[in-house]
Order: sequence, then C-alpha cells, then structure tokens
Amino acid sequence: MQLSNSITQYQGRINDYLQQQINLLPTHDTQLAAAMEYGLLQGGKRIRPVIVYAVGDMLGVSLRNLDGPAAAIESIHAYSLIHDDLPAMDDDNLRRGQPTCHIKFDHATAILAGDALQPFAFEILLDCALAPAAEKNRLAMLKSLTQASGYRGMCGGQAMDLAATDKQISLTQLETIHNNKTGALINCAAKLGCLASPHCSVELLASLDQWSNAIGLAFQVQDDILDIISDTETLGKPQGSDVELNKSTYPALLGLAGARDKAQALYQQAIFALETIPHDTTSLALFTQYIIERNK
Amino acid sequence: MQLSNSITQYQGRINDYLQQQINLLPTHDTQLAAAMEYGLLQGGKRIRPVIVYAVGDMLGVSLRNLDGPAAAIESIHAYSLIHDDLPAMDDDNLRRGQPTCHIKFDHATAILAGDALQPFAFEILLDCALAPAAEKNRLAMLKSLTQASGYRGMCGGQAMDLAATDKQISLTQLETIHNNKTGALINCAAKLGCLASPHCSVELLASLDQWSNAIGLAFQVQDDILDIISDTETLGKPQGSDVELNKSTYPALLGLAGARDKAQALYQQAIFALETIPHDTTSLALFTQYIIERNK
Repeated sequence: MQLSNSITQYQGRINDYLQQQINLLPTHDTQLAAAMEYGLLQGGKRIRPVIVYAVGDMLGVSLRNLDGPAAAIESIHAYSLIHDDLPAMDDDNLRRGQPTCHIKFDHATAILAGDALQPFAFEILLDCALAPAAEKNRLAMLKSLTQASGYRGMCGGQAMDLAATDKQISLTQLETIHNNKTGALINCAAKLGCLASPHCSVELLASLDQWSNAIGLAFQVQDDILDIISDTETLGKPQGSDVELNKSTYPALLGLAGARDKAQALYQQAIFALETIPHDTTSLALFTQYIIERNK
Repeated sequence: MQLSNSITQYQGRINDYLQQQINLLPTHDTQLAAAMEYGLLQGGKRIRPVIVYAVGDMLGVSLRNLDGPAAAIESIHAYSLIHDDLPAMDDDNLRRGQPTCHIKFDHATAILAGDALQPFAFEILLDCALAPAAEKNRLAMLKSLTQASGYRGMCGGQAMDLAATDKQISLTQLETIHNNKTGALINCAAKLGCLASPHCSVELLASLDQWSNAIGLAFQVQDDILDIISDTETLGKPQGSDVELNKSTYPALLGLAGARDKAQALYQQAIFALETIPHDTTSLALFTQYIIERNK
C-alpha cells in the first residue's frame, strides 16, 4: 500500500501546485487562461510528476524542491495532449472522460492554450525553488526538458507516428516512435528528479536512464494492450481508437500474448536497472509494477 | 546607407545561422524538419534578430555572441506565424509571397513544426556562445524569452486579438493587444541584445524598454497602414486582409491620417528614449526610421 499512498500524495501535490501556478496568471484573457487550466487540471495519472517526485524523494530532495520540475514536465505533457487531440491530428473528442480542449472551447483557443503551456512550463522551471546545492543543475534541467519536448524527442516522435499511420512498420520502427513520442518525457522526468538532488551523478543518471527507458516503453505497450482489452468508461477515452485510426501497436505486431510478454520483459529490464542504484529503490520498483499492471 | 548595409549584413548572418541550426537536426523525420526549415527560412524582414544585433553591436558585443539570442527569438516568431496562419486562426494561404506552411505541407505537420520550433528556440538560447562576462545573464535571457512568448506576452496578445475580431474595441484595448501580440517579442529582442553585453545595466534596460515599446507599436501601426495602402505583391500576403477579417486597426479607429500621426508620435518617443542612452545610437535611430518608413 506504500506506493499507492505516495502516488496519491504526489498526485494531490502536483494538482495543487499546478492550480497555484495557473492562479498566478494575470486575468487579461480569461478564455485562454481557462483553456490552459482545463488542459492542465482535467485529471490524469500524473505519471511524469510522480516519477520526478519518486526519484527526487529517493535521493533525499524535499518535495517542495521538486514541485517546479514536476509541474514543468506535466505542462509540456498537457500541451501535447491538447494538440494531439486536434482534428488535424488524432481528432479525439474525449479525453479523461471529458470533452477535449477544442470541443470544450474552440479550435483556435486549443491551439493557443497548447502554445502558451510551453513557455508556461519553461517559466516554472526557470523560477521554481530548487535545493541550493542543485541550483547549478538548473540549466541542465532546462536542456533536458527542451530536448525531450522538441524535434529530438516528443514532437519528432509525434511526427513519426503520424507518418506511420496506415503503414506497415517494423517493431524497431514502432519502438523508435515510442521512445521519442512518450519515452523522451518519461526519461526526462527521471533526469529532472535526479538533477534536483545534489547527489546526482553520472552513474545515477545512467541507471535512471535505463530504468526510465524500460518503463517508458512498458507504459506504451500497456497502453496498447488496454486499448484492446479495456472499455471506454474505464479508459476515459474511446476504446479501440488505435485500431480505428489504423495505428501500429504492439498487440498488432506481436499479438496480445506477445505484447504481454514484451511488457514483462521490459519490467525485468527496469527492475534490473534499479538494482544498480545504491539507494532505497522500493518506491521505484513498486511504481514499475504499477506501470504494467494498471488498468487505465 | 549605413543602416541598410548593416540590416542586410544582420539579415544574411541570421539566415546563415538559422540554416546551420536546422542542419544540426538529426534526419529522423524529414517532413517535420523540412516544415521547420520552411517556416524559419522563408525570408522575412528579421526585425527581431536585427534588433538583437543592433543593440548588442552598440554595446560592443561581437556578432557571434549575438547569433544565439537572435536565432532564438526569430524561431519563436517563426512558430507564431505558422500557427497564426492556420485555418482555425487567420486562415492565410500566403506568407511572404509563398504558400503558408499548412498549405505547403499539411495541417498536422504545420502544428507540429510550430510546436517543435519553441523548444528549438530555447535549446539554441541554452547552448549558444555568449560573451563570458554575460554568461551570468543566460537565465535572465531565458526568462525574458519565455515571458514574452507566453500567456503574459505573445500568446496572450493573440488570444485577445482573436477575441476582439468582429468587435468594436477602444484605442487602449487595441494598444494592449499589440503590446502583447507583437510588442512583447520586439521588447524582448532589445532586452536580449542588452543582456548579451557585460555592460547591461538597469538604466540601459529601462531606456531600451521605452525605445522598443515605441517601435513595437509603431511597427504595428505601419503594418495596419500598409495593409490599406500597399498591394499584395509588395506585401507578400493578401492586401486588405485586416479589413476582410474585420479586425480592429489603427486606420479604422483613427483614420489613415490619424494613424500616420500616431506613427510619427511613436517615432518621436523612440528617438527621445534613445537620447537617454550613453552610447552611439546612430544605428538604432536609423532603424527606428526604417520601421515607420518601410513599404512592406
């Protein structure tokens, strides 16, 4: 129960912090601010902030010195969901059981809300409190977040994903897409948690890199599995939408049993990476399990 | 002739530097990289980089230590144009005499190219060479760019502009829109040029703030005037598009003669601000003149 307690605590904490950051915006354009808030605070699993908190916590960083990095990465994730849902992209009307941003507001406002959440993220990471001894890592944190969110990371992955729609692709290509589209930010979350600690080292970063690469991919494999075996109500988004969009998925390439084996193998890789970390990795191990056992 | 020479030099320099930065992208998604390049290198007046170079040059910063800030701000501007042209926003098919990004490529690629140019900008500003004595200002430069591009700046202004379409607004409201939509980045360009110098001071920043606020607004007034008196070929975009979109403009609120008086008053304000700067402001004065005398 230890993990579910701390996940709930982290989720509550990031929701409060994000709300505070939104409340700091001047009220000159209530529609845009409302759309940003809607995109940011509509719920969600908060996987990336949870990783930031869990990794930092393991390294003895106080949670208040992790709020900023956690909020920054979640803001990038939130913007990407708003834009991914647009008619020209995945054309989704439902996200987390609610109308997507362009349905709730309008198309132009959704584009702008996504656009504005990017500098919002970077501003948070520029201004937030860090442990004094980790202040020297702020530029490295910013670099990690820009790389993970741009052409070399998430945006590049999304472009590859769109290009692969309706096409037969190999397992390697699918992996490259996901390593960029979702893996880059998950990997960055672990990095931010580590860089927020004065104990961050090259060795730690390397171990966390391996761990987060494995769980990033495992997360996606599980997402693909859930798209087939779950239902719309549990998912909060239309079940079967991958098949409908003719997207390449792990179950499509490996079969459902093969996809489950793949998730299991990634779980093992992640646990193996944790064993190289000379800190108490209990939380991270439980979180790894949660990633592949979640049902939504 | 002094100014037009240096403007041409700055324009050539920023085009080369932006091309180099694009060439550094890995080639995993040629469509996305091509769309980013198209948006960035399709020409344009390069007003913001020219300001960065002109201000930094005045303060003795070598041009190579201004390339990064100049390229970063132009990348933000380029992304905003790509998104502003989208069907859900201004729905423009022509920009600088060429098809807009979503016409040349497709809608999804244009959204992603804009999205990816934001972290591209911040990465450049994080990685670029600065004068060693100005290294301490890098975080302040990043803060200035995030503020100017986000809700408190350009995105907020664009949202206000969209909300004002088809509405009667006051001169004060119009000014607030432009101060955010275009003024914030022009203001930021002057700040970046100053922060790139070890001689940057609170007094200098204040004078440049006044100067850039005045030329930012003058630029917009002149833009509105050109939309009425110029032609599509000279502008490289459809003449009369403001009227067609039923946008509030200075000529609409003040008449054409009133708008010209306004531009002249802003010119005087800008020149007055330059007189408080204890450096050779000849280039900045000539640039101020160019802003209100340009015909495209």
